[in-house]
Amino acid sequence: MHIVVLGGGRVGATMARDLAAEEGFDVTLVDASQGALDPFSDGPVGTLRADLSQRRDLARAVSGADLVVGAVPGPMGFDTVRAVIEEGRSIVDISFFEEDAFELDGLARERGVTVLVDCGVAPGASNLILGHMEAELARTDRFACYVGGLPRERVWPWEYKAPFSPIDVIAEYTRPARLREHGRTVVRPALSRPERLDFDGVGSLEAFETDGLRTLLQTSEVPELVEKTLRYPGHRDRVEALSAAGFFSEEPVVLRDGTSVRPLDLTAHLLFSQWRLRDEDDELTVMRVEVDGVASEGDAIVRHTFDMLDRRDPETGASSMARTTGFTCTAMARLVARGLYREPGVSPPEVVGRNRECFDRVFADLEARGVLFRRSQRSL
Amino acid sequence: MHIVVLGGGRVGATMARDLAAEEGFDVTLVDASQGALDPFSDGPVGTLRADLSQRRDLARAVSGADLVVGAVPGPMGFDTVRAVIEEGRSIVDISFFEEDAFELDGLARERGVTVLVDCGVAPGASNLILGHMEAELARTDRFACYVGGLPRERVWPWEYKAPFSPIDVIAEYTRPARLREHGRTVVRPALSRPERLDFDGVGSLEAFETDGLRTLLQTSEVPELVEKTLRYPGHRDRVEALSAAGFFSEEPVVLRDGTSVRPLDLTAHLLFSQWRLRDEDDELTVMRVEVDGVASEGDAIVRHTFDMLDRRDPETGASSMARTTGFTCTAMARLVARGLYREPGVSPPEVVGRNRECFDRVFADLEARGVLFRRSQRSL
Repeated sequence: MHIVVLGGGRVGATMARDLAAEEGFDVTLVDASQGALDPFSDGPVGTLRADLSQRRDLARAVSGADLVVGAVPGPMGFDTVRAVIEEGRSIVDISFFEEDAFELDGLARERGVTVLVDCGVAPGASNLILGHMEAELARTDRFACYVGGLPRERVWPWEYKAPFSPIDVIAEYTRPARLREHGRTVVRPALSRPERLDFDGVGSLEAFETDGLRTLLQTSEVPELVEKTLRYPGHRDRVEALSAAGFFSEEPVVLRDGTSVRPLDLTAHLLFSQWRLRDEDDELTVMRVEVDGVASEGDAIVRHTFDMLDRRDPETGASSMARTTGFTCTAMARLVARGLYREPGVSPPEVVGRNRECFDRVFADLEARGVLFRRSQRSL
Repeated sequence: MHIVVLGGGRVGATMARDLAAEEGFDVTLVDASQGALDPFSDGPVGTLRADLSQRRDLARAVSGADLVVGAVPGPMGFDTVRAVIEEGRSIVDISFFEEDAFELDGLARERGVTVLVDCGVAPGASNLILGHMEAELARTDRFACYVGGLPRERVWPWEYKAPFSPIDVIAEYTRPARLREHGRTVVRPALSRPERLDFDGVGSLEAFETDGLRTLLQTSEVPELVEKTLRYPGHRDRVEALSAAGFFSEEPVVLRDGTSVRPLDLTAHLLFSQWRLRDEDDELTVMRVEVDGVASEGDAIVRHTFDMLDRRDPETGASSMARTTGFTCTAMARLVARGLYREPGVSPPEVVGRNRECFDRVFADLEARGVLFRRSQRSL
């Protein structure tokens, strides 16, 4: 089984290592940067240097693949997945591109390939849980996902580090959040509806609405759907103050000396070093998924809670972001590689999660790698 | 008695009106802007349009004056006071210039004129209180001044409006604060040592250190001297976050597109409209002065507290800032006009306050104008 991993960033590298450790998997990691490939020079992972934005290079990279794992940057994601489909290969993807993945559904069915998108932790594991619960329950009333990646050390004023550009984080803080309430889609400003939540091993965090539901708004009938981002308390207030004061604006302003500047550009410049997660920074990923529903009509409503707390692996240096995102993706790649999930077309994780065996396998793989979900339930 | 008021801003205009209402005072208001003078076209205040940055215009403006009241912008203050002294006129000033006023002491003595500086509310009334208490008490152990101008409406995120440019407010938030502790001058970052204080009629405010002691660090022997600025809780945290993140920096940064920009310039641009106090905005001034000391050696230490809360006058439209600053200054001008204070040289208000009659007269004048100080004391 030859698996080609496209993109050798933090997550791609972690996935290549994880898959290469599997009996019978022959893994090649592809990246445009030699620096991303150098760490693999004498291990079980093969490497190929290629510019994946070039269609011919991409075709060559996936030509011998039984399965492709996509981990390119978001802006390249949609075109990359389409090209892989056109090459007749199945792909399990975590590029989280902004475009609608279902636009590729017809093409994927036509080519008879399986395309799994949004296969990270959230979206990803969270969607698997909802799909699983929807299949198990007689009626599902509410889905809420609280998730955040956080530095272990809280340094004022931001108490935050990002594994990617501040521009992308600010986009999460400014893009209106689409949610579902009482069966209707509603749109609210990002950072809305803050609430305080307590997490074992972490303490109190603040949750606020962000636009993270993605495919669930199309695939799920659950009348209440909400996704919230978790940060240390205080971060949200300061970020919202910046936003309210215009520091995230993309409209150029002209200063007294005639200089024209987009406030967002200066803000991203100033925050870049302050928000940058360094490889040696200890960090953690916190997720809580709540699914409310009834096992049989007439039963009391039960809240099913799935709590996950993962930390950077001090041995391998893999960040919890790379672990939780990457190991969910590799677990889903194994489903396809082993023929456990073979639907042609585009499937988001909630669809995969409806299959009990697929759901159990993914969470067993995560548990084997130390990514533990603690499940509890209580009547409402 | 001919009194010339230099500068027809909010405070200067309020002072000209107040002085002109006095029997025997003939008042002329001088400003470079006709717009500042127009409101006085048919009242008891005479007007003169003159560019006070021009030495000859200034000389002409003060030529017939028995007393000058200075209310020009801070950067023009020192030169204006010096020029008035050179013209052989006494002056009572509220320009709060950055230079050391005592540099003009020799010149003022030589010309035999009386120069009162920093004659506002704080510095100003606060200094009068300390001078008075130092004269009354056998030993003074501590002086603390808490003061702030605030909008009545608290609008998130800043909950603040300024009667002057954001640049000047930001300067207060960045200039290191000089204080005295245990008899020694210490320097700490602005915004340091926040504390919560409650004020009748206002509620809880947050106080933090700013550089406002000015002449007191030279004239007073009191071993503990502190000045703090008052704002609604939350303002300080957001401002300090901006500061820590580099948004107040005057060092140009070069953005990705090559644009060079000083973060402070963009910040002042964005905050200008958000912090601007409009004439119709209701606002208030809060001040608390605490003086700890003993009436006789061996007594218990007593804390003498002076609380002042003043609001915009809805009838005249005069802001509390203009009222508290201007009426302290006009009260001190009356001392000089009436020969109650006639020391040649430069005197800051704490020196004037040592004279019991002068102190009582100033606070009686303030009370007559509705600026009330509530005095209380308790043993520590």
